[in-house]
Amino acid sequence: MEIVQAVRWSDDGDGVRIIDQRQLPARETTRDLRTIDDVCEAIRTLAVRGAPAIGIAGAMGLVVSMRSSKDASTDVLVANLRVAGDRIRGTRPTAVNLGWALDRMLRVAAESTTAGAVDATDSATLIARLKREATDILDEDRAMCRRIGEHGATMIGDGARVLTHCNTGALATGGIGTALAAVYVAVEQGKRVEVFADETRPLLQGSRLTAWELTRAGIPVTVLVDGAAASLMRAGRVDLCIVGADRVATNGDVANKVGTYGLAIAAKHHGIPFVVAAPSTTFDPHTTRGEDILIEQRGADEVRCGFGVQTAPAAVDVYNPAFDVTPGHMITAIVNEHGIYNPPFNFSRVEPGHSVRADG
Amino acid sequence: MEIVQAVRWSDDGDGVRIIDQRQLPARETTRDLRTIDDVCEAIRTLAVRGAPAIGIAGAMGLVVSMRSSKDASTDVLVANLRVAGDRIRGTRPTAVNLGWALDRMLRVAAESTTAGAVDATDSATLIARLKREATDILDEDRAMCRRIGEHGATMIGDGARVLTHCNTGALATGGIGTALAAVYVAVEQGKRVEVFADETRPLLQGSRLTAWELTRAGIPVTVLVDGAAASLMRAGRVDLCIVGADRVATNGDVANKVGTYGLAIAAKHHGIPFVVAAPSTTFDPHTTRGEDILIEQRGADEVRCGFGVQTAPAAVDVYNPAFDVTPGHMITAIVNEHGIYNPPFNFSRVEPGHSVRADG
Repeated sequence: MEIVQAVRWSDDGDGVRIIDQRQLPARETTRDLRTIDDVCEAIRTLAVRGAPAIGIAGAMGLVVSMRSSKDASTDVLVANLRVAGDRIRGTRPTAVNLGWALDRMLRVAAESTTAGAVDATDSATLIARLKREATDILDEDRAMCRRIGEHGATMIGDGARVLTHCNTGALATGGIGTALAAVYVAVEQGKRVEVFADETRPLLQGSRLTAWELTRAGIPVTVLVDGAAASLMRAGRVDLCIVGADRVATNGDVANKVGTYGLAIAAKHHGIPFVVAAPSTTFDPHTTRGEDILIEQRGADEVRCGFGVQTAPAAVDVYNPAFDVTPGHMITAIVNEHGIYNPPFNFSRVEPGHSVRADG
Repeated sequence: MEIVQAVRWSDDGDGVRIIDQRQLPARETTRDLRTIDDVCEAIRTLAVRGAPAIGIAGAMGLVVSMRSSKDASTDVLVANLRVAGDRIRGTRPTAVNLGWALDRMLRVAAESTTAGAVDATDSATLIARLKREATDILDEDRAMCRRIGEHGATMIGDGARVLTHCNTGALATGGIGTALAAVYVAVEQGKRVEVFADETRPLLQGSRLTAWELTRAGIPVTVLVDGAAASLMRAGRVDLCIVGADRVATNGDVANKVGTYGLAIAAKHHGIPFVVAAPSTTFDPHTTRGEDILIEQRGADEVRCGFGVQTAPAAVDVYNPAFDVTPGHMITAIVNEHGIYNPPFNFSRVEPGHSVRADG
């Protein structure tokens, strides 16, 4: 099984290699981002997407940005890095994960120079130090994905038919995904797994991305419109639902891509386990319950003409929340890289690395 | 309030005037179908759609077809009518309503000539007789829509926020619709009603058609993706769900556009009344329960590239049922032109006019 890698170093190590997700599912195009302009444009236009993946791309992009001034003093390099960081941050200003990764890189740069650990003239060492930090961010994400997958896979039996929503796979992370990682690990373990992927309107991450990466990995996948999930359950064709999370409150309420809540209601109605898998960075100790999560309303034209075709009256009102909230009491288990949690949930003591916001 | 009329006679009475639904929601185009070629093409390409509307268009189309041979003997006219009937029937061979309307017209033609009621040379009288029959079919449908609407409107309070799925309005019938007729009548009665229209993937009848005809009638309507309905209910913004039916079993199980069942589960979870409104012709005395209803699986490309854009891997498997089945015990009330029925349902004694199959 070959699982795609959404973001990594280019072969020569000087660029950020991404799969251009704007081309999916029609074409698999790999691009090497070699300038800060390339990096900003790729993040801004969703060529690279998914909270973990854009954080990684941003950190690696900072390293790429240093190549044009690699003969300057480290002071100049650090000053340039701050400018570059602001530019990258501005491409997706609400992406908390991106900001976290950029801050971590800039902190390392500042510490390396102010503490005198790197000589003021030794820009090569500073660049190497930052490249190592960006690689660490990538590798940490890969390890975290795998651990989530290993815990999640214990809940997937041989022959399981798994229904999922949105994209929580390799295309959204530096590794093998979050919720979908459980499927990948189960298949690696030799289990036969069949996946049903909700297309996930309005932006169709399920049909465009999840179906694509599973197909590429050779895992059987069937796409359905979101409204067909309940009838699939009633037909006895779903053994487990597994979805990701954009934010987990301390009481286990989960904000995730719109459509998740309806899926959870249908799963409960049919007695089908409903599992959420997400990194611990998604668990927010400052949010005690779902009601406190502000739900972003997105543009009406995602619904009125999302594919370049007008599918609703031009001026009609649209209700287009990015996320919905599933109450913790409707969730069978929540998985992160540390293990599996069962209700009643209490995540007030989970140590957060940083907060993550979704970006679809 | 002006409610559109999907199918009627042209101003000169010699053509079938339709709203070309292929142009919606972008443009309102009225077309007069003046030949049998026009009629067949309009039905085949979904310029006119909705089970009742295509039955009416088919019956009226038979009259239009007689104009080219209006100087022939009545025997020739009847023979030509049979050929025309076969052609029109072939445009939507699974549309039971269309077959029923054509059979009724051909029976009247046969009876008029074999009983000697119309002289063999008096083709004008035969044409007039058949035009009256087609007009009767239209008028009966209009009356039935209104009665369904009047019964349904009693369940809609002033200020009600009504969620609906697919298109069950004027565009699907000769009159003011079936389930949506309840909204029109409530508004006529002076009630303030706000409608939420599920976009209804894969074919988007909700955003393309329901939102359009409500906007045109001046009724406030908000479009949402199907996956957002549950969160709208949780936010306390839905007072009533009302949907149509493609087939009602004698135990009250209802086959309707895919997505209806998930909506019913969510409504039940939130304690929101779930009402089905449909003509008695949809009640099938030969179907005792939902499990006996064969669910048509439709083409994969409705899901893989329904917008003219490829939104899933080209060869990926697709689960695309046209309908789903909502168990009668999850339905608050079923309305037809005769009245309002509450559970436990027993429709084994409802007198069927004919069976209706959906055509989306």
